[in-house]
Amino acid sequence: MFSYHLEPNLRLELLAPRHAQEIFEVVDANREHLRPRMPWVESTQSVANVEAFIATTLQQLAGNSGFQTAIRAGQEIVGVIGMHKIDWQNKSTSLGYWLAQKAQGQGIMTKACAAYISHSFTQLGLHRVEIRCATENTKSRAIPQRLGFTIEGTIREAEAIDGRYLSHVVYGLLSSEWQKTLSQA
Amino acid sequence: MFSYHLEPNLRLELLAPRHAQEIFEVVDANREHLRPRMPWVESTQSVANVEAFIATTLQQLAGNSGFQTAIRAGQEIVGVIGMHKIDWQNKSTSLGYWLAQKAQGQGIMTKACAAYISHSFTQLGLHRVEIRCATENTKSRAIPQRLGFTIEGTIREAEAIDGRYLSHVVYGLLSSEWQKTLSQA
Amino acid sequence: MFSYHLEPNLRLELLAPRHAQEIFEVVDANREHLRPRMPWVESTQSVANVEAFIATTLQQLAGNSGFQTAIRAGQEIVGVIGMHKIDWQNKSTSLGYWLAQKAQGQGIMTKACAAYISHSFTQLGLHRVEIRCATENTKSRAIPQRLGFTIEGTIREAEAIDGRYLSHVVYGLLSSEWQKTLSQA
Amino acid sequence: MFSYHLEPNLRLELLAPRHAQEIFEVVDANREHLRPRMPWVESTQSVANVEAFIATTLQQLAGNSGFQTAIRAGQEIVGVIGMHKIDWQNKSTSLGYWLAQKAQGQGIMTKACAAYISHSFTQLGLHRVEIRCATENTKSRAIPQRLGFTIEGTIREAEAIDGRYLSHVVYGLLSSEWQKTLSQA
Amino acid sequence: MFSYHLEPNLRLELLAPRHAQEIFEVVDANREHLRPRMPWVESTQSVANVEAFIATTLQQLAGNSGFQTAIRAGQEIVGVIGMHKIDWQNKSTSLGYWLAQKAQGQGIMTKACAAYISHSFTQLGLHRVEIRCATENTKSRAIPQRLGFTIEGTIREAEAIDGRYLSHVVYGLLSSEWQKTLSQA
Amino acid sequence: MFSYHLEPNLRLELLAPRHAQEIFEVVDANREHLRPRMPWVESTQSVANVEAFIATTLQQLAGNSGFQTAIRAGQEIVGVIGMHKIDWQNKSTSLGYWLAQKAQGQGIMTKACAAYISHSFTQLGLHRVEIRCATENTKSRAIPQRLGFTIEGTIREAEAIDGRYLSHVVYGLLSSEWQKTLSQA
Repeated sequence: MFSYHLEPNLRLELLAPRHAQEIFEVVDANREHLRPRMPWVESTQSVANVEAFIATTLQQLAGNSGFQTAIRAGQEIVGVIGMHKIDWQNKSTSLGYWLAQKAQGQGIMTKACAAYISHSFTQLGLHRVEIRCATENTKSRAIPQRLGFTIEGTIREAEAIDGRYLSHVVYGLLSSEWQKTLSQA
Repeated sequence: MFSYHLEPNLRLELLAPRHAQEIFEVVDANREHLRPRMPWVESTQSVANVEAFIATTLQQLAGNSGFQTAIRAGQEIVGVIGMHKIDWQNKSTSLGYWLAQKAQGQGIMTKACAAYISHSFTQLGLHRVEIRCATENTKSRAIPQRLGFTIEGTIREAEAIDGRYLSHVVYGLLSSEWQKTLSQA
Repeated sequence: MFSYHLEPNLRLELLAPRHAQEIFEVVDANREHLRPRMPWVESTQSVANVEAFIATTLQQLAGNSGFQTAIRAGQEIVGVIGMHKIDWQNKSTSLGYWLAQKAQGQGIMTKACAAYISHSFTQLGLHRVEIRCATENTKSRAIPQRLGFTIEGTIREAEAIDGRYLSHVVYGLLSSEWQKTLSQA
Repeated sequence: MFSYHLEPNLRLELLAPRHAQEIFEVVDANREHLRPRMPWVESTQSVANVEAFIATTLQQLAGNSGFQTAIRAGQEIVGVIGMHKIDWQNKSTSLGYWLAQKAQGQGIMTKACAAYISHSFTQLGLHRVEIRCATENTKSRAIPQRLGFTIEGTIREAEAIDGRYLSHVVYGLLSSEWQKTLSQA
Repeated sequence: MFSYHLEPNLRLELLAPRHAQEIFEVVDANREHLRPRMPWVESTQSVANVEAFIATTLQQLAGNSGFQTAIRAGQEIVGVIGMHKIDWQNKSTSLGYWLAQKAQGQGIMTKACAAYISHSFTQLGLHRVEIRCATENTKSRAIPQRLGFTIEGTIREAEAIDGRYLSHVVYGLLSSEWQKTLSQA
Repeated sequence: MFSYHLEPNLRLELLAPRHAQEIFEVVDANREHLRPRMPWVESTQSVANVEAFIATTLQQLAGNSGFQTAIRAGQEIVGVIGMHKIDWQNKSTSLGYWLAQKAQGQGIMTKACAAYISHSFTQLGLHRVEIRCATENTKSRAIPQRLGFTIEGTIREAEAIDGRYLSHVVYGLLSSEWQKTLSQA
């Protein structure tokens, strides 16, 4: 029921138990595409695994620590985006996302991120938004670059995935920088 | 961030912690209006009380047992509507709602209820929706009547409120009846 | 250890873990009799299921939300009766019960209900007791009728059981009505 | 509602929230009498303290770890008796009790203990019941002595109470010994 | 990381998850030796069982209710010693321990107990330490005897283990007695 | 009881409830020194606050997510060091620490960090250790620099403290790098 329209045929839907079947099918159809960068792909073997994940995201929402949404393009779910958590003490959050292979190249995730950033700074009053991408993940890195984030460093061998360690580029965006971007747009 | 548009200037917003201040102000400005029919008015004495209520509704959502929304008309919150819980075993739910005095008489709550009913039958696959109104609350009773509910009985002295017992008229609507209403509209 | 004597050879025993074996056997011997009206019969497949149910009823007692008892006629458990919960805010409760087939027709459940009603109004200070029966369940309906309850309505298709929906007749009894009945007895 | 009759005017009532006021009054009227041997007397300063204790005993019951009862002589509560816990692994329990001053000397507690012992060995299938008394508490010690317990030792300075350490005489009774006592009675 | 040196090649290590494998191996190699006196041997069938036990001991520590340690002689774990709980109200605790067969006869457990006793009286400010041994377990009983404990009684048939009941000799040591022992040493 | 000796008069002690008083006194004596870089100083106003913090660290240990220790130089506690958490999935942890003003300049914290690093790589099998310091905190930054960490980036305005935002320099050390350092030492 709850959604945020990015544009007429593109929206964010708050994850709910009834999304589990549909999301599992997208993950299942994108295993080769997602496995090298998403640590949870291997352990997502059934709809019940997705239901458990969704239950976790609703606990996160109930704990006032951020939320996660499905991205629906037309009739289909094509990905998920969400906050890892909200650090209210330091007024910061970080974003994570994945997109089905066939939905790439259309600017979908950039629009979704922009909506989260806008909500974080305007509605939630946060000060800083962070995105971390594997150094080699060019497509993922293009998103914060397009949105005006600053590269702040490279956390070496930060993530163990699919049998090897990936390093993470840290992208940061401050509330003041987002205001400037908006006023120039 | 998450909302459902009933019409261009009228929407349902999933209750979030940041709504607490605004809802408290509406309740506070409508004490005389709400006290005779809402048992929680007396104990709602601060923003913290509303925050606690909202935390409860988010736990309800996380437990897959329904949700509650603020109703926003233009810039202002004018009421709240939600499910008391979802009985998945018997595929039924019941609705509760209240509206600020000045927002009455515009069909707002009827539209909000219609959205919940539609979501319950279509998205959630429920079989039955129930609304209970105090026998004397003519305005509240008008809503299920307008939406095609059937009066199923009167539960005598069902609720203790403001020092006396109120009886409840039970209105029921079945999924099949709603389909018929829609097809005739 | 804890029991309430209805008459010399008939008593209510607070459900305890040691009742599980005996109750399972009664349920198991009455499957055909109980299945059409008790939703939990299908999922009661072992003593462990009854133990889990009894643990739930003890949590209910510990939460000051009512209790459940075995009904013992002579040496044998012949049924269970209890409160679904206590609504302290509105000072009301509702009763549920089942009886083994061979124990029917002796007024056992009417006496058991009378004890619960008396306890509810006198010891607990409640204002209202409710009993809901499936419309077609003549034997069950005879009990509130005999005890002076008023029919307050029929909740249509309220319960999904054994593959179909049953409607519920709602019977209500107020504290003042019970006093009158007693004084006339 | 739930009670066990020791004799026509003497019974054990399972502790329930509604006993709190009455028990607090007995404790309050017996402070001087109870303080030297009951560690909780000092911290029992209001009905709410007794309510909290009763809630604990109901959790104990719900956890299948024993129960506690008020002792009612005629119309009045005159004491409390209960199990500290049940050790199912080793099939043993221990009893604790206190009595109002004016109810002493009538054999009330001996009858209450006998009922608990009988229930423990017969209904619960336990193997051993223990009672510990402060060495100097002659009245309390008379009870296990009268009931055929064996002195098994003296645990030195086992309890800190009212500013000093008390030693505990340990009385033990085995199931087989109780059977013998009964057959000789 | 955390250990307490009893002597250069003998130390107590706070139990941590990484000890599970090693402890399981010692238990497994000592089944015949331990079974007659340790009730948990039968149910310790995998490393996961030991992990669950260690998790429990860490919860105990987190609850400020005592702790448990592995005993390491040279490179090998040869046993476990710990507090059953701390009774802060009465300032007392009791110790439990087991040793691999091949590590017996070297005074290891006596030194380990002495360290616990010293910590209990000096660091924790306790008043009493208790050790219970099965009457027939001569080796275990030698330890409190060597350390100056007093025999306070024999709890008959206190423990069900390996199909029969064992009686427990209770050994007690008071803080003042320990001070005297130390000053005489 | 549990400690790790860094050198004869310098050791790490696992935080326990009995440390609360002593740690509060050190914090209280170092308020001016700590306030500009430790967010919790303002809210540490009593021994009870430190007790609550210590309880949290013991829960962390019980959850197998790292631990925290007091640093004792001679007879006195002079600081605290610990892991923020352990990320077992990615085999990494991060360290945090503070030192009383008068204990600075003696290499104490460098030795303490070295012990944690060594334990993390050797005992826990971790792959990466991280330390974050405020850009302006020269003394804190000297520690990872001395221990061979690599500067990986600067997280801008990462922490809100004492009314302003501080940026964090991220220092990282991989297991392989630590082995090399050790072999060259």
